[in-house]
Amino acid sequence: MEDKRPKPIRCRAAVCRAAGEPLAVEEVVVDPPKAHELRLKIVCTSLCHSDVTFWRMKDFPGVFPRIFGHEAFGVVESVGEHVEGFAAGDAVVPTFLAQCSECADCRSPRSNVCSKYRFAVRPGMPRDDTTRFHDGDGNPIHHLFGVSSFSEYTVVDVTQGSERHGSWPRSSRDLRLLSSASAPWDWRKEVRRDTLHQPERTWGENCEPGDLLSVLFDCFTGGRPRDLVNACVEIVRLDTCFFHDKQVIIEMTDGGADYCFECIGLAALMNDAFQSSRPGWGKTIILGVEMHGAPLTISSLEILHGKCVMGSLFGGVKPKQDIPILADKYLNKELELDKFITHEVGLEDINTAFDLLLQGKSLRCTIWMDK
Amino acid sequence: MEDKRPKPIRCRAAVCRAAGEPLAVEEVVVDPPKAHELRLKIVCTSLCHSDVTFWRMKDFPGVFPRIFGHEAFGVVESVGEHVEGFAAGDAVVPTFLAQCSECADCRSPRSNVCSKYRFAVRPGMPRDDTTRFHDGDGNPIHHLFGVSSFSEYTVVDVTQGSERHGSWPRSSRDLRLLSSASAPWDWRKEVRRDTLHQPERTWGENCEPGDLLSVLFDCFTGGRPRDLVNACVEIVRLDTCFFHDKQVIIEMTDGGADYCFECIGLAALMNDAFQSSRPGWGKTIILGVEMHGAPLTISSLEILHGKCVMGSLFGGVKPKQDIPILADKYLNKELELDKFITHEVGLEDINTAFDLLLQGKSLRCTIWMDK
Repeated sequence: MEDKRPKPIRCRAAVCRAAGEPLAVEEVVVDPPKAHELRLKIVCTSLCHSDVTFWRMKDFPGVFPRIFGHEAFGVVESVGEHVEGFAAGDAVVPTFLAQCSECADCRSPRSNVCSKYRFAVRPGMPRDDTTRFHDGDGNPIHHLFGVSSFSEYTVVDVTQGSERHGSWPRSSRDLRLLSSASAPWDWRKEVRRDTLHQPERTWGENCEPGDLLSVLFDCFTGGRPRDLVNACVEIVRLDTCFFHDKQVIIEMTDGGADYCFECIGLAALMNDAFQSSRPGWGKTIILGVEMHGAPLTISSLEILHGKCVMGSLFGGVKPKQDIPILADKYLNKELELDKFITHEVGLEDINTAFDLLLQGKSLRCTIWMDK
Repeated sequence: MEDKRPKPIRCRAAVCRAAGEPLAVEEVVVDPPKAHELRLKIVCTSLCHSDVTFWRMKDFPGVFPRIFGHEAFGVVESVGEHVEGFAAGDAVVPTFLAQCSECADCRSPRSNVCSKYRFAVRPGMPRDDTTRFHDGDGNPIHHLFGVSSFSEYTVVDVTQGSERHGSWPRSSRDLRLLSSASAPWDWRKEVRRDTLHQPERTWGENCEPGDLLSVLFDCFTGGRPRDLVNACVEIVRLDTCFFHDKQVIIEMTDGGADYCFECIGLAALMNDAFQSSRPGWGKTIILGVEMHGAPLTISSLEILHGKCVMGSLFGGVKPKQDIPILADKYLNKELELDKFITHEVGLEDINTAFDLLLQGKSLRCTIWMDK
């Protein structure tokens, strides 16, 4: 009798073997999913600055060899034991954030950060810290965020796969990048207040058309790519959208922006964001993971006088609950994600996606597995 | 022809001549109000921890001799030039916070911190930094917050007097302490969400019955006056209300309180409040002015994961706009302020009010001028 249990799959993946080195597209072995896991066939994925952060990182949690990628769309190839609600062929958006749906945070509308499976930069899978990727000689290849979507196949924990949804097209090429970019979602969601429906989790409950927003991120090139600024302005239709230049922000907003976003993960930049925010009611929203572990140091007097510091991890989105809603909105043309996708390449050309991002030329570059 | 211009008034006031010394009730001279100023006959006043902070402060902005007091109710005795909307006999609640009603902050529902006349601990009046108090030899006596209500008469800027309101009883002894205690207002307002109507300025828009709140303040006695804890619990009807004990708070709230209030103005205590707040959605609300100018140092990762730091100066109350509303609610028995008043004394016994507060025995002690 035939053994129907999932078997290891040999496929192509973009593997990084050392910090900062170009990825090598090579054959890897993807293990079958263990209990509570899904093995996905990736349709498309995209490159985020967070991938670049860990691609550059020489020391732990920078580990190599590793497969990056955490924004993707795929289809279930097989499921492990104790998986409910998913079957082969289901369309899935894997996410770096888990939703166990059982813990206090998952049950509360106030939080989107699962406290049972906390977000952490592990080299392996969330339940047993082992890898599902190996090279031809059986040596392990590490994961990123439990997603590792720069591979034709990957394995994700069931808590990190958005649930099946009746109206989703299976394997549709249209349904791309729905796991992409918490920051753009933030912008979209908050500027268009109707996009989501959980104001209590978000910073934007009082955000109104006409508010002045500043978006602070250093570009790796060190310059100020004005084209990208203009692209941001155009895309999110904000009154103001700046790169990192505290003094310019304060002058152009006549004292400070209503909302300042820190997008990189640098304490100094968080401080700049705080100082660039308007006294009296300016909100500083932290989107970046501080990369050196430095604390945030701010004036409590400015807090007392009305400034506020808050965070937005994955834009306040509860993955399993909200991604189907966002997907519907995208498919119904209510959510215009296409404008964020400035470039498209095939997996073989994934290093081009890195180059474009490093040069400040792209917002999101879709990487197609079958292109 | 008689000169009807206001003349200096000799009256009793509680004067502090050196940091930490008992107040001396003595005769002072109160100058006539200058342009844009009101001279008030104080009916009653109360003692706040902020008075104690500046009473203890040896160095600038601690200055002596000084008349403390910034929570009071009074009646207009005379007005200076260019004063509109006030006349002798009007009931007024003077406040440490100004409302010019013209600046961007006053015009916005988001802020209650006037940006034209910013809150600052000046020794004199806000427009010219001179004093309106003198001793018998003409030597100046300094102000606190532009209120200095520990005197039978005082002078306040017109921006710091709440506007006349038709339904207020003139000179009523019932209308006491309406300028009192931003913190109790915070509690009341937020626990009873209907008390005010400006959610965008407050931390409590999502506060719900059953939420766990912790209130952090060190007592000057260094102990933990459980009676006062119980009083607070009873008064504000919260599920939980603690004094400063981080570990106890975390244990009793099963991981952290939903809202943590820092009430003293110590960076270390603000940090404790932050650490005592629940991961995922805990809000730290700063009520105290940091007394050593130390910055607040917190983990940006915890912010990213959902914690939030915000302030509440005067409970988000816009003085001229909101105090009449609060007064109406108090007079209509909708706002139960009486429970906050644990003691009453006459001006001669003002040092008893200090003793009671320093010993942790009182919440608010009303000081009556005619008692």
